[in-house]
Amino acid sequence: MKILINTKPFNEEELYPLKDDFKEVNFVFEQDKEKIKLEIKDADVLIAGKISDEALDMAEKLKWIQATTAGVDFLPLSKITNKNIVITTARGVHKSHITEYVLSMMIMSARNLHTFILQKDKKNIIWKIGNQDEISGKKLGILGLGSVGQELAKKANYLGMEVYGVKRKIDKFDFVKKVFTPDNMEWIFKNCDYIVNLLPNTKDTENIINKEYFDILKPNCTMINVGRGSTVNEDDLYVALKNKQFKLYISDVFAKEPLPNNSPLMELDNIIITPHIAGPVNNYSKKLYEVVKPNIEAFISGKELSNKYDIQKGY
Amino acid sequence: MKILINTKPFNEEELYPLKDDFKEVNFVFEQDKEKIKLEIKDADVLIAGKISDEALDMAEKLKWIQATTAGVDFLPLSKITNKNIVITTARGVHKSHITEYVLSMMIMSARNLHTFILQKDKKNIIWKIGNQDEISGKKLGILGLGSVGQELAKKANYLGMEVYGVKRKIDKFDFVKKVFTPDNMEWIFKNCDYIVNLLPNTKDTENIINKEYFDILKPNCTMINVGRGSTVNEDDLYVALKNKQFKLYISDVFAKEPLPNNSPLMELDNIIITPHIAGPVNNYSKKLYEVVKPNIEAFISGKELSNKYDIQKGY
Repeated sequence: MKILINTKPFNEEELYPLKDDFKEVNFVFEQDKEKIKLEIKDADVLIAGKISDEALDMAEKLKWIQATTAGVDFLPLSKITNKNIVITTARGVHKSHITEYVLSMMIMSARNLHTFILQKDKKNIIWKIGNQDEISGKKLGILGLGSVGQELAKKANYLGMEVYGVKRKIDKFDFVKKVFTPDNMEWIFKNCDYIVNLLPNTKDTENIINKEYFDILKPNCTMINVGRGSTVNEDDLYVALKNKQFKLYISDVFAKEPLPNNSPLMELDNIIITPHIAGPVNNYSKKLYEVVKPNIEAFISGKELSNKYDIQKGY
Repeated sequence: MKILINTKPFNEEELYPLKDDFKEVNFVFEQDKEKIKLEIKDADVLIAGKISDEALDMAEKLKWIQATTAGVDFLPLSKITNKNIVITTARGVHKSHITEYVLSMMIMSARNLHTFILQKDKKNIIWKIGNQDEISGKKLGILGLGSVGQELAKKANYLGMEVYGVKRKIDKFDFVKKVFTPDNMEWIFKNCDYIVNLLPNTKDTENIINKEYFDILKPNCTMINVGRGSTVNEDDLYVALKNKQFKLYISDVFAKEPLPNNSPLMELDNIIITPHIAGPVNNYSKKLYEVVKPNIEAFISGKELSNKYDIQKGY
């Protein structure tokens, strides 16, 4: 069996645990575009970040693509599906560290910690007790109850928050008081103190967060986007922030990335921007390995793969 | 029975739950220094932030002072003890929101979130994945395992950290792997990724955190001080930060407060400064009431008071 790997985090060096754990597998690591086209011909499996249409056309035996990310919207999805190739995602790899990012940011907003960072930078700290809130006891709405959403629900609940969620299919989730569907989610926007957007990029989620929802937010609401930038109408967002309709918008993702430094959003003081850093983490390859290893085992023994991508759902 | 209150957060308005819950008690709220001297004469109990020596001399019946803060080092302690007046503190009131502050700050350091706040302010966000760490799996050392320390141990443990602690008297604490005494705490400074100082201001803790400990920190260590500024030798701190001996110092407290804007510490870029805001919180009076109410009940029925201050220990 041959497994072609065309992407970090599994570079040459980090292939060794794979090679040690699966001595019967021929692992090939290749990042050169032309060489990938040759190597993919007889590969059974591809572990990939991105892959071109042309390379895919060369594959003769490929049965399974293991993505190294949770979102796979950048892959040539219909071509892959038409060739009956299974895609599995790296779902679950991010749940702990993205949850940490969100917890830190919610508390930062509650306690206005970002304002002290700026005061210190300007050497003008204002020694006066202002608005010092806490997240305990507050309502959190989570848009998207996948692996990260469920982890966040659990940990936020543990820190004393009341958690509500949005999911396409109503289901019971531990730590979530009530689940709403996307066509019936106004309650979340009207009532929650913190709203965390974890929605993937699909045709259904495009611009789903728009004026309709910004207009009904609580004045003290904090919104955090660590899903996809395409889910938010950024023109509507700009107007809502400019009008100070809610407290703070914190975003790691934007419709266009990098967000240009001359974007109107950069002019606002009620927005915190991070450069798409919530997903990566120093020990990402170790975490990814914990997802990939059992899937290779399953593939070898003909068992069901985990984290299968569903083209209908879009995740 | 007469209870004199000379301080917020129990202002006139917020007296009402007290008045409703204890109809038999005569509550007097007074903030004028001269009038306090008259009202204290026949008071049985004082709920106080600060109180002057002169006012205390006027008290003829006073049996108990309930402080509205956790630290009471600003009270005339020996005079109070000599008069056989019991002091109780507001221990426990801060545990949830100070823990939130610490969790947010630890993650901020791990993910370098403060650097993005500054990049955005300068309209120059660097879209590049840098050092993105997480607190899960890391070692946390807590100096002082009182009410906040134990709450932090619990929640940090829940977020995947390994917790170690320092306490004058070795004891078993849930969620703490090992407890060290102050005269044997080098291990904490040598090995922990995060060190949180919750020490009170006592004669034993003065300058206890000094060069000896700064010199053995891990290069990637983050230190957070939400205890008292007097516990840290700030000259030694300045040298250690200037030499970049550890990653980041985050402090809400300083030897002299307000920290002057021309303090040398303000010149450094590996320090985060907040203006003594970790303790206060918007709903402080509600939290305080949850401590004070059962103590008033205990006092009325002659039972043991909670949170008694011990002048020997200094907390």
